[in-house]
Amino acid sequence: MLFHVEMVVKLPPDMPTEQVADIKAREKAYSQELQRQGKWRHLWRVAGSYANVSIFDVNDNDELQEIISGLPLFPYMDIQVKPLCRHPSSIREDDS
Amino acid sequence: MLFHVEMVVKLPPDMPTEQVADIKAREKAYSQELQRQGKWRHLWRVAGSYANVSIFDVNDNDELQEIISGLPLFPYMDIQVKPLCRHPSSIREDDS
Amino acid sequence: MLFHVEMVVKLPPDMPTEQVADIKAREKAYSQELQRQGKWRHLWRVAGSYANVSIFDVNDNDELQEIISGLPLFPYMDIQVKPLCRHPSSIREDDS
Amino acid sequence: MLFHVEMVVKLPPDMPTEQVADIKAREKAYSQELQRQGKWRHLWRVAGSYANVSIFDVNDNDELQEIISGLPLFPYMDIQVKPLCRHPSSIREDDS
Amino acid sequence: MLFHVEMVVKLPPDMPTEQVADIKAREKAYSQELQRQGKWRHLWRVAGSYANVSIFDVNDNDELQEIISGLPLFPYMDIQVKPLCRHPSSIREDDS
Amino acid sequence: MLFHVEMVVKLPPDMPTEQVADIKAREKAYSQELQRQGKWRHLWRVAGSYANVSIFDVNDNDELQEIISGLPLFPYMDIQVKPLCRHPSSIREDDS
Amino acid sequence: MLFHVEMVVKLPPDMPTEQVADIKAREKAYSQELQRQGKWRHLWRVAGSYANVSIFDVNDNDELQEIISGLPLFPYMDIQVKPLCRHPSSIREDDS
Amino acid sequence: MLFHVEMVVKLPPDMPTEQVADIKAREKAYSQELQRQGKWRHLWRVAGSYANVSIFDVNDNDELQEIISGLPLFPYMDIQVKPLCRHPSSIREDDS
Amino acid sequence: MLFHVEMVVKLPPDMPTEQVADIKAREKAYSQELQRQGKWRHLWRVAGSYANVSIFDVNDNDELQEIISGLPLFPYMDIQVKPLCRHPSSIREDDS
Amino acid sequence: MLFHVEMVVKLPPDMPTEQVADIKAREKAYSQELQRQGKWRHLWRVAGSYANVSIFDVNDNDELQEIISGLPLFPYMDIQVKPLCRHPSSIREDDS
Repeated sequence: MLFHVEMVVKLPPDMPTEQVADIKAREKAYSQELQRQGKWRHLWRVAGSYANVSIFDVNDNDELQEIISGLPLFPYMDIQVKPLCRHPSSIREDDS
Repeated sequence: MLFHVEMVVKLPPDMPTEQVADIKAREKAYSQELQRQGKWRHLWRVAGSYANVSIFDVNDNDELQEIISGLPLFPYMDIQVKPLCRHPSSIREDDS
Repeated sequence: MLFHVEMVVKLPPDMPTEQVADIKAREKAYSQELQRQGKWRHLWRVAGSYANVSIFDVNDNDELQEIISGLPLFPYMDIQVKPLCRHPSSIREDDS
Repeated sequence: MLFHVEMVVKLPPDMPTEQVADIKAREKAYSQELQRQGKWRHLWRVAGSYANVSIFDVNDNDELQEIISGLPLFPYMDIQVKPLCRHPSSIREDDS
Repeated sequence: MLFHVEMVVKLPPDMPTEQVADIKAREKAYSQELQRQGKWRHLWRVAGSYANVSIFDVNDNDELQEIISGLPLFPYMDIQVKPLCRHPSSIREDDS
Repeated sequence: MLFHVEMVVKLPPDMPTEQVADIKAREKAYSQELQRQGKWRHLWRVAGSYANVSIFDVNDNDELQEIISGLPLFPYMDIQVKPLCRHPSSIREDDS
Repeated sequence: MLFHVEMVVKLPPDMPTEQVADIKAREKAYSQELQRQGKWRHLWRVAGSYANVSIFDVNDNDELQEIISGLPLFPYMDIQVKPLCRHPSSIREDDS
Repeated sequence: MLFHVEMVVKLPPDMPTEQVADIKAREKAYSQELQRQGKWRHLWRVAGSYANVSIFDVNDNDELQEIISGLPLFPYMDIQVKPLCRHPSSIREDDS
Repeated sequence: MLFHVEMVVKLPPDMPTEQVADIKAREKAYSQELQRQGKWRHLWRVAGSYANVSIFDVNDNDELQEIISGLPLFPYMDIQVKPLCRHPSSIREDDS
Repeated sequence: MLFHVEMVVKLPPDMPTEQVADIKAREKAYSQELQRQGKWRHLWRVAGSYANVSIFDVNDNDELQEIISGLPLFPYMDIQVKPLCRHPSSIREDDS
């Protein structure tokens, strides 16, 4: 089941450099593990911003919550979720 | 080059039924032709709405404008465009 | 799987009285059938408005889309969808 | 009498870990006691967020204010309240 | 139990003059009857607008809904409702 | 002359407890003195919030500014002002 | 007593040309009469728009309401009102 | 050439009292000097707020920027600018 | 003197095709004449929309108003105006 | 390929003066280097603000992201990006 998630990162300007580096490294590892599992199906940067658009493929709402609330950057992001479903005009097998 | 486009359809409530059917049929054909060409890479319905999220893969901004302004439903949609680029944490070949 | 849906009805002021009565009757029948099936789990009026808050219990996003887009009032409503999941502090069996 | 309440939690990023743990534990106990009393009738997490949707069943506006302003997380939440009433299409005994 | 209600009137510009006069006359009669009953406790015009601020004193949310949805101008107004309760600093007997 | 004023209190989360208590005590005394003078005609809590709705009866805009800018909580509040006047449908002597 | 009023004109696109001309002529006459009386103290066009910024000098809120609701264009404008008072740094005699 | 400028002051709540007093004194002197030069033509307080509405009479956009960015309170204000021009219905010599 | 203007075109969906063609032809001629005069310095389409971003070079606010209010599409556009001035980091001769 | 970018600078009020001077100097050098390369085609100050409007000429979305995320002021700005393309009414060679 697919979900469209937009994340805008807002780190406090006074967060120490090492803490920023650490949290970003953990975010990257977490994200890549979920991509390998097929749970985080797409991940794009929005050009000109510190934001991304992502497509998640999860079993249900509970798994979505578990994944998103586990993001190392979760406390520092504005996050918007939209449930997706198959579009009647889509011809791609994997758009659902 | 990828663009993220959200389209919300707002047909006038007094549009005749046949005109609605005709415009939707033309929109579907137009969309599927672009999907076959690889220009319209993804197309999802936002669940619980008359809206979609799409990913376009075009040569440049001019081609994006040509495609979107040619949509049969173009005069009846609210449309938001975001340029996308590769995310440094993405591991997928086709996320750019 | 639960979804929280808010619907605000905006009928065109010039819709004929009989058409309004007909569409409302069909909406009521549709809603009550889904309540009997257990798909439409809760339905409340927001006091002082022509709006409701609903909780749907569906198999997945596709079923949610099918139900909502089938509402007789669908073309005349502003609709907002939020996916719900179990709250760690909930003690009710049926809050998920 | 039912009220629909949405709460979005915004803890200051520099709140010490123990203080966060303490305030969350007190919030959980407070919430579960009210659930047992039947005052806090439903409690759901909004998937992909640090927010909840709740249904309260109280005697009047004063009791609603007493309950909400007593929440341990009250100073750290954006809260929206909507009064609910019976929907003419509802078939459930307990939707009012 | 008190509720704060703001109403902004938006009549369609092409509504016939007699219909406007009729609906306003019925709105006035309806409002004054409720004021006499003590249900509509205050009614003020917002200066420089076609809007009012009202305080209702009703038994519960259901009565509020019944009164507001019965307003002759109901289909032509944007309406916002806020539940009120006694303020701990108020010294007036009738502020609750 | 009447004014409708909404005040939403936003105290900094790190304000020391004694300072909070002191500022609230001064706010209460200030408010009650103005209520006794008849300047602050109504004061209600908005249920489920740290906000109030007030009706002021002042000589002119200058007096309104003097009263509101003198509130001990003034630097910590979002404040919205609407001038009120007599509504043609009001039957109450004191609604103006 | 001064009030700051912004008016944005939104004429229905299908209003007949003569009706537009008539309503504008009456608006102009009405406005100039009030300027001659000193009630409408300033009137500026916002460049690049069909909107104005005005300063009214009236006895009280009731007179403001009487003047604004009497504008021939009143049903076709979005109007925002702000009460003004003397600024402590102003050195002009007529800024209050 | 006239410009309409609204300024809302938002001082950090932890700014030391002397610094506040100093910045306000410099703002007042700066403002009064520009009023004497005829550059800052009107200055009003918005009643019930820490905000003002101002009319500037400058040679061009560059001078406007020079004046506004030189305000001692500039870093602590939300500022909105609208270019003004003569209104065809104005009868005042100095409304342009 | 430069102004930044964004225009979003919203033609009524029931405007006859010939009227649309006529108004667009007049808009194009009007725009190109002003470009030739150097008054309309830049004109870009916002990709994926029926909107443009323009830079005007005019003598003053009055000329800006004269040009914009004379646009054949003026009654059908949402228009936002920002005054521009030289940026201290610009190295281009013609950025002012 | 052209992009329209608006940047609003929001420096923390407690940033030390030297740090502000340093970051602004680096921003200026960075901006002027890109202007010399022809990547940053226009740069204007929005009069009365700490904001700019810029036109970038880049190869693709990735280069836009690289340039913008490299701005020394990037963590302190609200940034909005719009893709531009040739307007059918433009007569200028360099508006694309």
